[in-house]
Amino acid sequence: MTGKFIVIEGLEGAGKSTAINQVAAVLSAHGIESPELTREPGGTPLAEQMRALVKEGHPDEPLTDMAELLLLYAARIQLVDNVIKPALAQGRWVVGDRHDMSSQAYQGGGRGFDIALMENLRNTVLGDFRPDFTIYMDIDPVLGLERARGRGELDRIEQMNIDFFHRARARFLELSENDPRVAIIDASQSLEAVTADISLALTTWLEQQ
Amino acid sequence: MTGKFIVIEGLEGAGKSTAINQVAAVLSAHGIESPELTREPGGTPLAEQMRALVKEGHPDEPLTDMAELLLLYAARIQLVDNVIKPALAQGRWVVGDRHDMSSQAYQGGGRGFDIALMENLRNTVLGDFRPDFTIYMDIDPVLGLERARGRGELDRIEQMNIDFFHRARARFLELSENDPRVAIIDASQSLEAVTADISLALTTWLEQQ
Repeated sequence: MTGKFIVIEGLEGAGKSTAINQVAAVLSAHGIESPELTREPGGTPLAEQMRALVKEGHPDEPLTDMAELLLLYAARIQLVDNVIKPALAQGRWVVGDRHDMSSQAYQGGGRGFDIALMENLRNTVLGDFRPDFTIYMDIDPVLGLERARGRGELDRIEQMNIDFFHRARARFLELSENDPRVAIIDASQSLEAVTADISLALTTWLEQQ
Repeated sequence: MTGKFIVIEGLEGAGKSTAINQVAAVLSAHGIESPELTREPGGTPLAEQMRALVKEGHPDEPLTDMAELLLLYAARIQLVDNVIKPALAQGRWVVGDRHDMSSQAYQGGGRGFDIALMENLRNTVLGDFRPDFTIYMDIDPVLGLERARGRGELDRIEQMNIDFFHRARARFLELSENDPRVAIIDASQSLEAVTADISLALTTWLEQQ
């Protein structure tokens, strides 16, 4: 089997890190060792600098919504062209902590950029590059943010109003429900139930490849 | 007269700084004092950080052409939304050292992004915001780079192959010749002739406003 690009998506506190570990374990059980692990925004030295511009607070100058969106895509294409595509070309597997669906959800759903603009920008920047399989960890933002707060200080994005996250979740669900390459996991369940669901979804997909 | 946005465009070594001084002098002679001076990419604290990512060499990780393009537009919208539009809204004049035509010329003409993609991105990011008047300082890149080299070390963009600058110049000319809001100045002339041409072009335009 040639290398594939698997992405974990979801709101803050949805348990993405747990999901990534479980994905790595399932891949290992299928003989796929040491996948390339990426995170977005960031994942390369230059993309991490772009991430910092998005994540840090800027008390003296607001980062405009459009500049934020363009920085996220600049970081994404750095990662895709310099890390993800080269790894796939070598036959390696890639497991991504977030990818394009996060922009569709946070900037499209959350910030309110319209769907046509978001699709246009994605197609302009990424062409037809898409993940092979996505695991969307679905959680109510009230619960997710409660979990995220337990981990420490919230960044610029995580400090947004709760309505922002409700809009983001709605877009995540809308995109996930309409795409056969996306598995929706109920992330509000117990850890055992979540990991079992991830294993089942990923194993089912792997066996279809 | 309400505030207007005047832009100086041209290749390295075309004499943009001289042109900006002459524009300020002509505006002053027409009673327009202390215009807001901007430069691109950059011109705000955040946009200058994006500029640095574009201008600096990155020996360990190539900045992809698409990431460069997106960073330039991120910097541009920061400047437009946080500096240029607020100044114009207060009735102030703005004189810009480069604006969108530079991206059309360097990234479109020079890097080879197609015209449809470039227009699409510009319209997506800037909507219908355009300069009121542009002075394009036209120079053969061989002469321009010779002048620029005389000023010291060349940055990442200025180190491109000469063909890159020939393609950029061709796009500058193509865009300028088809736009009545652009004056083309022959920047290979003597300083006196260049400043006289700028004065004439700007004065003619000002008197039509």
